[in-house]
Amino acid sequence: MIKQLTIFGVGLIGGSLALALRKAAACTRLVGCSRNSVHLQQAIDLNVIDEFTLDPIEAVRDADVILLAVPMGAMEAIMEQIADHLPPAAIVTDAGSSKASVVAAAARVFGEVPEFFVPAHPIAGREKSGVSAAIANLFVDHKVILTPLDNTCPSAIERVTRMWQTAGAQVQTLGVEQHDLVLAATSHLPHVLAYGLVDTLSETDYVEEIFQFAAGGFRDFSRIASSDPVMWRDICLENKTAILDALQNFQDNLEMLRNSIERSDGNALLKTFTHAKTIRDKNVMKHKTKPE
Amino acid sequence: MIKQLTIFGVGLIGGSLALALRKAAACTRLVGCSRNSVHLQQAIDLNVIDEFTLDPIEAVRDADVILLAVPMGAMEAIMEQIADHLPPAAIVTDAGSSKASVVAAAARVFGEVPEFFVPAHPIAGREKSGVSAAIANLFVDHKVILTPLDNTCPSAIERVTRMWQTAGAQVQTLGVEQHDLVLAATSHLPHVLAYGLVDTLSETDYVEEIFQFAAGGFRDFSRIASSDPVMWRDICLENKTAILDALQNFQDNLEMLRNSIERSDGNALLKTFTHAKTIRDKNVMKHKTKPE
Repeated sequence: MIKQLTIFGVGLIGGSLALALRKAAACTRLVGCSRNSVHLQQAIDLNVIDEFTLDPIEAVRDADVILLAVPMGAMEAIMEQIADHLPPAAIVTDAGSSKASVVAAAARVFGEVPEFFVPAHPIAGREKSGVSAAIANLFVDHKVILTPLDNTCPSAIERVTRMWQTAGAQVQTLGVEQHDLVLAATSHLPHVLAYGLVDTLSETDYVEEIFQFAAGGFRDFSRIASSDPVMWRDICLENKTAILDALQNFQDNLEMLRNSIERSDGNALLKTFTHAKTIRDKNVMKHKTKPE
Repeated sequence: MIKQLTIFGVGLIGGSLALALRKAAACTRLVGCSRNSVHLQQAIDLNVIDEFTLDPIEAVRDADVILLAVPMGAMEAIMEQIADHLPPAAIVTDAGSSKASVVAAAARVFGEVPEFFVPAHPIAGREKSGVSAAIANLFVDHKVILTPLDNTCPSAIERVTRMWQTAGAQVQTLGVEQHDLVLAATSHLPHVLAYGLVDTLSETDYVEEIFQFAAGGFRDFSRIASSDPVMWRDICLENKTAILDALQNFQDNLEMLRNSIERSDGNALLKTFTHAKTIRDKNVMKHKTKPE
């Protein structure tokens, strides 16, 4: 049971967690904090949070759990504002999509990463963003990855684990670096590709026809190009190295495919396509969890 | 009303059309032909077709409509086998994913593209292929693009249009070249990217985690990497020029994005992502048809 959860950034993720905990009666008081009182009032009107304040210090005063659910680029500034004002028993966790940068920010702000800080990443999202898109079951059967450090307090890990489990999520643990590599490949790279594809096609003479006759391939690809641009800009900057790595591998692969098509090398194409299909079919059968 | 529809290649597309016409009682006799009697017998067992033959000449003898629903690479061989044996009033149409190559094949086989040949492309598909994946409502609310030539007989166009409308499809017309450019961008390129992405990721040390923690972006991208490799090899070979064009544009765009990430140029990233989201949201609102 949480007495007061303070959420920095009551958007899709923060708002959905609030709704889930409220539904489960797992939190006595839900407090929101951001720089935007209009959004926070909307969160009150939608019955997502109980109270809000624009003052970070006031926001954390009586909190036992504090969730940083702001865009990656705003994490460090919030940490700086609250660092000297945290209640002794408070646990801090976050919902950032890359973990090394959040951990590095915590180390800079606190001198070392505090034992009460549990880096976390709920793998869930929708095309829509903002508190109006928040839903209580967003995390049901989705994964939340915790990336605790050696010094992270086991009881803090346990508490964050239970919080996300209460929201219906499957909580698992990865190393910080491993998390960033895996997510760069499975989430960050595909988003870059989707934005790039839509941007490319928007430059052609036949944009109108492209959307009019859009087949499934394009629909699937382009859906995630409707994601929040600020969030994804931040992710690209914060998980830069891993994303550039994954991107380079992909670009090399694409160049190889281009060469095969140029040479009309049907055998090479068939080999690659068959290999990809086999890998994908095998692994999808094995891991039947819900997509984002 | 069709008296006899002969389908070359009773797979997902040919089989689904057969089921749709049977359901609508719009065809008296459904005849299948391919080189594989096991698949054809399966089509009989599933009540998809009424009869089958392995002999193309026999297959077309009493047909009033002939559908070529074989992989692109097999189109010309079928045309050659039936060219001299078509009944006088028979209409020939196809279901190929690129049109210039089919039209060129018809021109080679028949001397010029016959007026009774209606090039067509049903934009529908599933991850699964083969006759066992065929369903009667596959084409409902999906587009079928006809790419008739100047000499194509209007009554043949009309008949093929009605056939697909009976299956629930929305029939529209594009020029051959325009079709190939638009489909290269919206369907062929995304498939190449999906195969390439899964292939790339299969080379990493953490394939297991990639699928275990796969987020929505990757799910969406990789779904189409489960498509039939032979079909997509053929499409890459048959619509080579348009695909290479679209691929080059995309590669250039990706290189630009890579540079922005390398330079940590948040403004450039935000500009591209916002532009893509705007284009995508605007056009998706405008064209609300079913995805493939």
